[in-house]
Order: sequence, then C-alpha cells, then structure tokens
Amino acid sequence: MTVEPIGTVRTDFPEKFGLPRQSGTPGLSGRVEFFAPFDREEAFRGLDGYSHVWLVWGFDRSGPQEEFSPTVRPPRLGGNERVGVFASRAPYRPNGLALSAVRLKGINREGGKVSLDVDGIDMADGTPVYDVKPYVPASDSVPEAAGGYASERAGHSLTVRGLEKLEAVPAEKRAGLESALAQDPRPAYQEEGRTYGFLYAGFEISFTVAGGVLTVEKVSPARPGRRSPARG
Amino acid sequence: MTVEPIGTVRTDFPEKFGLPRQSGTPGLSGRVEFFAPFDREEAFRGLDGYSHVWLVWGFDRSGPQEEFSPTVRPPRLGGNERVGVFASRAPYRPNGLALSAVRLKGINREGGKVSLDVDGIDMADGTPVYDVKPYVPASDSVPEAAGGYASERAGHSLTVRGLEKLEAVPAEKRAGLESALAQDPRPAYQEEGRTYGFLYAGFEISFTVAGGVLTVEKVSPARPGRRSPARG
Repeated sequence: MTVEPIGTVRTDFPEKFGLPRQSGTPGLSGRVEFFAPFDREEAFRGLDGYSHVWLVWGFDRSGPQEEFSPTVRPPRLGGNERVGVFASRAPYRPNGLALSAVRLKGINREGGKVSLDVDGIDMADGTPVYDVKPYVPASDSVPEAAGGYASERAGHSLTVRGLEKLEAVPAEKRAGLESALAQDPRPAYQEEGRTYGFLYAGFEISFTVAGGVLTVEKVSPARPGRRSPARG
Repeated sequence: MTVEPIGTVRTDFPEKFGLPRQSGTPGLSGRVEFFAPFDREEAFRGLDGYSHVWLVWGFDRSGPQEEFSPTVRPPRLGGNERVGVFASRAPYRPNGLALSAVRLKGINREGGKVSLDVDGIDMADGTPVYDVKPYVPASDSVPEAAGGYASERAGHSLTVRGLEKLEAVPAEKRAGLESALAQDPRPAYQEEGRTYGFLYAGFEISFTVAGGVLTVEKVSPARPGRRSPARG
C-alpha cells in the first residue's frame, strides 16, 4: 500500500537530536500544516470537540532500513540491551510509521486553509504526516496498562543545572526545553564527560551529563545551515 | 512511502458487518499472525512486560477512495450528520490506516514462529497489519482527554433481547458477541423494523432493532461461502 503525506509538522527541532523519546512533553509545541486538498475547513469539522489528536507520521530522519533487523537498542535501556522491534517504539521498524498523542491547542483557519497548533510533540521540523485522528479516550486511553521497560524507567530523569544560560531562549519555549533536557536527550551510546548538543528554536544547546546531573554548558544562536555540533 | 503488511489478524468476523466501531470490547478476541521474517522470536523480546499493544492496520474492507472526500457520516451520529474526516476514525480517509489498542492476552511461540492473542479487536478476519507497537501508558493514555461526539454518545447502547438464541455460539465467544450487539452493529443508514445480519464465529446472527431494543431473531450455522444476509 502506498501512503502519501497529507501535511507536515513544524517544530523547534530542525533535527531529531534533543527530541523526547515519546510524545506528551508539555511546552514542546508544533504546528501541523496540511497540503491541499487536505487543508480544507470541512475536513476538520467537529474537531473542536476534541482536546487531543493522534498524529500518524513517518520516521524520515532515521535512514532507510535495508534489511529487517528484529531487535533494537532503546536509549532508555542505556543502549546496550536489545529488545524486539515490536516491543519498542524505535524508528527502525519494517514500516516507518510513528504514533503520537498530542494536545490540540488550537485550530487555525487562515484564508480557508487549516493548520493545527499542538503541544507535546516528539518529531523534528518538516516531518511528514500521514493522518490525523481524534483521540477517543473510551478506546485509546488505558491508564491501567502495564508498560514494560519504558514505564519502569519512566521516572528516569536528570537534574538540570545551568538553567540561567537558557534565558536567551524565548520564555514560552523554555519550559518545554527544560523538560526535554531532564528527559536525557543523549543518544543511545552515552559517554560521561562528553559535550553533546542539539538545535532548538534557533539556538545551539550544548550540555554535559555526569552522575545524574545535566549541565547546560552553552546556548548560542544557531548559525544558518549549521547542523548539531555533537550528535553522538 | 510504501508500507507492506507484516502480518494479518484472524478474528471471528469474516466481514466488517457487526464489528464494533472502536477497539476495546472485552471478549472479542483475535490472533495476530506474522509473515516471515517478522514472526521471529527476537522481534518480540520484551513484549511480555506489556499488557496492551497498538495494532496499525489497513482499512481493506472499505473500497478504495478515488477522490478526497473531506467529510464523512459517522454511524454514531445516525448517519445523517457530516463531520470532517480528520475529526473521525472513519475508514474513508486519505491513507487507509487504522489504530487499535488491544489487550495482549498471550504470546505464542510455536516452532519458532510468533503469534499474538489479543482481546478487544475491531477488525475483520484477514485484515492486514502494518505494525505492532507496545502501548506505553505514560504517553498513550490520556484519560482526561475530551472526546467530541464519539464520547458524547458513548453511553449509547441497546438493550439486547433473545439472548437464549445465542446458546449455539461457544460460551467463550458469547460475551463479546453480546457486547457487540449492545453497541448497535447496524450500518449508518438505519431503518426500524428491518432485519439485519452478520456473520460471527461461523454463525449467521439476525436481529431487529426497535425503540432502543435489539432483538436477536435467529442464529444459524453460516453456510460455507455465504456472505452476510442483510448488510444494509
């Protein structure tokens, strides 16, 4: 089956580095823009009644998978332990489809074209979107579900120091960034003492991690066309 | 992007008629069977820790959509009211992808081939599956989400009479069938007094609906190759 993008998500992360591993981080906002004819107002009639939506999107930043690899090394497990691809939400999977539940902040209707403001994104800027579906809590929400390794380590968060260096980042974008840092944005293969970095909202954010503490080292305006300095 | 089925779901519904509109009905069970090489044990390592999984599957029973139709008529709204396709979970959408959260009852490993026993299905037998992902409650479960028209009418259920006629149906398959009937399995265009029918677990189930009461009229063994008698 062929699937075609119906739109794209604009976010503050030009690359995948720095992004949380799952959706739902408050303060990380994005805008879903739709291609014609999917941007028509009628196509969204009734969506106002929903507080959350599913985005079905494509893992386009992870390179094609030449051959089926049955296991992956989730960053949550430190990058050393292998689990089955169908027991993970890893991007390297037979069909590169991702699911994210995001909060619907607003529906824009400008010049008859619809875009959606959402909160809790976990995808890079320009990510292709294949579907938007309303979040129906009666069938989609299973609060009592047991969550395997992902939930066992969900409490896993870092103390963030050097927050004063984030003052250059616009206030409304800062809380989301702090949460993203606390969630340990390092790639799967981690070395203590190493300086990591990622781009966010036009800034280059550099940090180190040691003993459960993430220290923001430097925040500087990203040079145009510059890619992340130390992506691991 | 091309997506290829990794497997298929075996359910008691040979056709889409009679299926609940959303996943999660207890007692409606199915088995997800995987095609090689996706059936390998390693690909499911760690899935035992999860109680629920997402099935990403294809709406293959709804015919191709020649042209983008921005609105649909959800059965929950009686089939007369139109809502935007992106404000619905309707099968007629630009990319025919469906999401269902199902309970993981068991993981079978027979001869090195994995299949999954699941509960709460809402798809017909033989439906193509494009992905299996663990249900991660921390990001997937939003119990406080507001649910639009789907939840406003979620309480909408029928009183079911004539349950004694279901005795021919194997006991372990009966509770799910009763729930499916109470959820009003009529198609979108409904006429009181009309006899409807669908196939379930090898039986042909006929019923009528009047004044909020569904009456089971007849339960008979389905003849091989027979399609649903009155599908609306």
